[in-house]
Amino acid sequence: MTHPLALPMAVPEKGLPARVRIHEVGARDGLQNEKGTVPTQVKAEFIRRLADAGLTTIEATSFVHPKWVPQLADAEELFPQIAGLPVDLPVLVPNERGLDRALALKATRVAVFASASESFAKANLNRTMDAALAMFAPVVTRAKEAGVHVRGYLSMCFGDPWEGPVPVPQVVDVCRTLLDMGCDELSLGDTIGVATPGHVRALLTELTGHGVPLELLGVHFHDTYGQALANTYAALQHGVTTVDASAGGLGGCPYAKSATGNLATEDLVWMLRGLGIDTGVDLERLVATSVWMAGQLGRPSPSRTVRALSHKEQ
Amino acid sequence: MTHPLALPMAVPEKGLPARVRIHEVGARDGLQNEKGTVPTQVKAEFIRRLADAGLTTIEATSFVHPKWVPQLADAEELFPQIAGLPVDLPVLVPNERGLDRALALKATRVAVFASASESFAKANLNRTMDAALAMFAPVVTRAKEAGVHVRGYLSMCFGDPWEGPVPVPQVVDVCRTLLDMGCDELSLGDTIGVATPGHVRALLTELTGHGVPLELLGVHFHDTYGQALANTYAALQHGVTTVDASAGGLGGCPYAKSATGNLATEDLVWMLRGLGIDTGVDLERLVATSVWMAGQLGRPSPSRTVRALSHKEQ
Repeated sequence: MTHPLALPMAVPEKGLPARVRIHEVGARDGLQNEKGTVPTQVKAEFIRRLADAGLTTIEATSFVHPKWVPQLADAEELFPQIAGLPVDLPVLVPNERGLDRALALKATRVAVFASASESFAKANLNRTMDAALAMFAPVVTRAKEAGVHVRGYLSMCFGDPWEGPVPVPQVVDVCRTLLDMGCDELSLGDTIGVATPGHVRALLTELTGHGVPLELLGVHFHDTYGQALANTYAALQHGVTTVDASAGGLGGCPYAKSATGNLATEDLVWMLRGLGIDTGVDLERLVATSVWMAGQLGRPSPSRTVRALSHKEQ
Repeated sequence: MTHPLALPMAVPEKGLPARVRIHEVGARDGLQNEKGTVPTQVKAEFIRRLADAGLTTIEATSFVHPKWVPQLADAEELFPQIAGLPVDLPVLVPNERGLDRALALKATRVAVFASASESFAKANLNRTMDAALAMFAPVVTRAKEAGVHVRGYLSMCFGDPWEGPVPVPQVVDVCRTLLDMGCDELSLGDTIGVATPGHVRALLTELTGHGVPLELLGVHFHDTYGQALANTYAALQHGVTTVDASAGGLGGCPYAKSATGNLATEDLVWMLRGLGIDTGVDLERLVATSVWMAGQLGRPSPSRTVRALSHKEQ
C-alpha cells in the first residue's frame, strides 16, 4: 500500500563535492569494538558483500598483537581470502612488527594510529605523543619504501576524556608531523563523539590555513552524542571528500554502555544521496548486508536507516 | 579519573542565530506515540521538570477525541495542574470541539495539524487537503478572536509514504494558506524522516522567496533515517530560530517498529551549545528528567546524549 520510498529525494546543494569516497571501517573498527569474536569466514563474506554493495575502500583488519584485540587475531588467515577483491583493503598496523606481518601478506595500504592528546597517547599507546609519533616514523618510512599507501588516524581531535577540549593548534601540529613523516592521507577522529559542527569547521579552516591539502583529509565522527552526521555535513561544506563510516553502525551498539557510536554507513549514504552526491554505493544491498551481519552478531543494527528500511521489508 | 566533559567545547559559527527557541513536544507528540498510558500525575511532574530545566515552550497535551489518542485522554485533568507554570503551554486542537475544550480551560496557545500531502490528509484526517484546511479555518479564526496564539503544524513537508517526494511548491501553497488563515507560526514537519539538508534548504529558500517571514517558521524533524540533526543544522544556517524536539527522544523508541524517531531535545541542545547558541536549557537537568521519565516508561531513552551522559553518572 505504501510508496516504496527506499531513497530520499535528491536535492543537491551548491558548493558541496560531487563525489565522496566512503572509507568503510565496519570490518576493522566495528568488529574490534563488538563483544565476542566473529568467525573468519563470516568476516570474509562480510567484506565481499560490502564490496558487492559498491564500497571501494574497506578497512579489512588489524595487525595488532592478539593480546590487545583478540577479535582481529585472525588477520593472517583472513587477509588472503579477500586480497583478490577489486577494492582497496587497508589494514591497521600499530608498529613495525605489524607492518612486517602486513607486508608479508602483500598488503598495499596500511594505517597507523596516532593521538592528538597526551592522555590518550599515554592510555592507548603507553607513550608520550612525541614518543608515539617517533614509533610511527620508521613504520611510515618503510611502508613508503615498499610502495605502500599510508593513512594516518588521528584520534581525540576534538575532545579527550581526561583533558577535555583539545586545542585546535595542537591537532594541527600533529597533522603536520604525520604528513611530514610521509602519510598519504589523514583521518581526523572524534573518538569520544563530542565535536559539533562549528568546531569541525574551525579545525578544518585552521588545517587548510596551514597548508594541509583538503584532499588528504578524511573525517571520522562518532555518534556518541548524536552529532556525527551534522558534523559530516559541516565537513562536506568545507570541501572534505573522504568520510569514514561503519556498515550498520558496527562497533557502536546502543545497548552497550561502552558504545563508541560509529557513524553508520547507511545513514551517511542516505544523506549523501539526498544531497545528490555520488558514492557508488547501492543502499539496498548495503542494508541487506548489515541485516545479515546483525543476524550473525545476534542483535539488531543500531543504524536508523537500516532499521527503517529493513522494517519496511518485513 | 575521566574529565567531567558534560558539555561540548563552544565554537560559534558565523551567520548562525544567537538564540534558538526549542518547542518541546515530548509531553504531547512524544507520549502520544508511546505504548501505554502514563498517569496524569507523572505527566504533570514531567512538564514541571521540563520547565525547571529551562524549556520555555512545552506542548502539554492534545484535545483530540480520546478514541483516537487514548494516551492523552486526560487533557482536562492534566492542564489545570500545570497551567500556573511560567512557560508557554500550547495544546493541540484538531477541530472546533477541541478548541472549545481548550478555551474552557483558558489555554492561551493552541496548535492545529494540517497536511502538505493529499494522501496523508486522507489517511490522518479522512478529508482532502482543501477540506482539512477548510475545517481549520473557523478554528483559527475563533482562536484569534479569543486572543489565543495559533501554531500550524504542517506534516509531510518532504516526503509522504504513499506519494513519495512532496513537491516544494505544494508545501509553499499550504504554508501560505495557513498564514493567510491567521496562524501565528508554522512548524514544518518531516513526518517520515526522509528529508536531507539540501531539501531543507530548498524548501526554506522557496518559502522565504515567497515572502514567508523566517521568524514564523519552525522545523520539526524526525530521526527515522538519522538525518534530524543535520537537517536542523541546515535550517539554522538558513536562519530558522525555532526547533521542535522531544525530551529524551520520546515517541521515537528505537526498539519499536513503528518508531517515528523524534529528534531528542538533548542531542539538539548538545549541538546548539557546541555552536555557542543560547537556548536557556540546563542540559544536566534535562538529562536527569529524561532518565526519570525513562524509568516511568520502563525502558531506556533512545537519545544518544541521554545515554552517554547518564552512563557517565553511573
